[in-house]
Amino acid sequence: MKKVNAGGRRQFLRASAMIMVGGPAMLMAGASMAAPMGFAGLAGPMGFAADDQNIIGPKEGYTPQIGTLTSMMAWLRPQVVNSVKKLSVEQLDWLLDDKANTIGSLLFHLASTDAFYHEHTFKGLEWGKFSPDAEKKFGVAMELGEGARKEIKGNNVDFYLDLLKETRERTLAEFKKRDDKWLLAVDSKWFWGPTNNYCKWFHVCEHESHHLGQINFLKSRVPAAKT
Amino acid sequence: MKKVNAGGRRQFLRASAMIMVGGPAMLMAGASMAAPMGFAGLAGPMGFAADDQNIIGPKEGYTPQIGTLTSMMAWLRPQVVNSVKKLSVEQLDWLLDDKANTIGSLLFHLASTDAFYHEHTFKGLEWGKFSPDAEKKFGVAMELGEGARKEIKGNNVDFYLDLLKETRERTLAEFKKRDDKWLLAVDSKWFWGPTNNYCKWFHVCEHESHHLGQINFLKSRVPAAKT
Repeated sequence: MKKVNAGGRRQFLRASAMIMVGGPAMLMAGASMAAPMGFAGLAGPMGFAADDQNIIGPKEGYTPQIGTLTSMMAWLRPQVVNSVKKLSVEQLDWLLDDKANTIGSLLFHLASTDAFYHEHTFKGLEWGKFSPDAEKKFGVAMELGEGARKEIKGNNVDFYLDLLKETRERTLAEFKKRDDKWLLAVDSKWFWGPTNNYCKWFHVCEHESHHLGQINFLKSRVPAAKT
Repeated sequence: MKKVNAGGRRQFLRASAMIMVGGPAMLMAGASMAAPMGFAGLAGPMGFAADDQNIIGPKEGYTPQIGTLTSMMAWLRPQVVNSVKKLSVEQLDWLLDDKANTIGSLLFHLASTDAFYHEHTFKGLEWGKFSPDAEKKFGVAMELGEGARKEIKGNNVDFYLDLLKETRERTLAEFKKRDDKWLLAVDSKWFWGPTNNYCKWFHVCEHESHHLGQINFLKSRVPAAKT
């Protein structure tokens, strides 16, 4: 049996391996099929231990449902980082056609989504009535399209990765102050219908997959970097 | 106070609206920003009441974490259906370039992902060692690429939507038989590192966002349907 090297939560998760259902040990075969890219040996950017990276569920430091949500966010983020981290400025600025977004803009857009959901769900501001500072820093990237094609260019990948890191760190810091009651609290007036903070933040989470699908599509067509 | 029209779970969720934090009631303003498309008035295809569609969290008929996962899946699925439901056969078969996948193939691929994770997580088969029936029906769509470009064509949208419905219904039926211990059970030998069923099925869930990002990208470029 594997050594238990951390506290109660991990002990629980390891213990639950004992009740694994479904027959034989599962070995990898045909890993290419629907396998997300860039996993091997990753230490997550969210501060979870590497061997905890692919365990979705409650996490220390958060209430159970908030921790589960953070584990999903932490699972997706390295896929984004690994997809783009070697791209040049020219590749980040490349447009597939005249209505496409650049990979750089899409990365900025992901950071903006965290930032505007901070304004809304943490600061309690109405959607669209954000603080002037947030609007100035993140507004263009949030809207994408023509404005972003004109204004977001010339930045290296660290510029975007720093924005992603900074906004996500704030997300997690604020999540630590809140609990599952907050996460499940219903907003009856939201524009997609009665919803809760869990749905809003799950949207932020899956929105990253949505645009990563586009980033990977663009990346497989982007011209090779000049050497 | 709004009438409570269902059992304990909904009562809990409604009650939690009372502890809403963060200031004024949130009205929609600037809804276009990072708003997922196609929400208004949707009744979910998963059998949840329409007013429950945008509430992520535990759901009746499932253990709490499995229910939460199903609520995420149920939140994303109508976005896929609404994005594609009016596309013609020609549009579903359209290729952006010679390495693209068609929208039809991507839809088939989503159904295949549910189907192969059935084989693996419900039937306990090793990844890639699926039953001949599943392999025959879903193998080409799972792999995408050249095989899918050759073989998956000429189907109308209902063909793909039926596949999505049939595979997802089985997912949900099997989830009903399982519990959170199963969901959190760790597989130490999986190819992306030690992981649990929650991570595998969260991947199936976010994988839908990933490809919906691509479907929407393709859809905004697909030639208009012939009238």
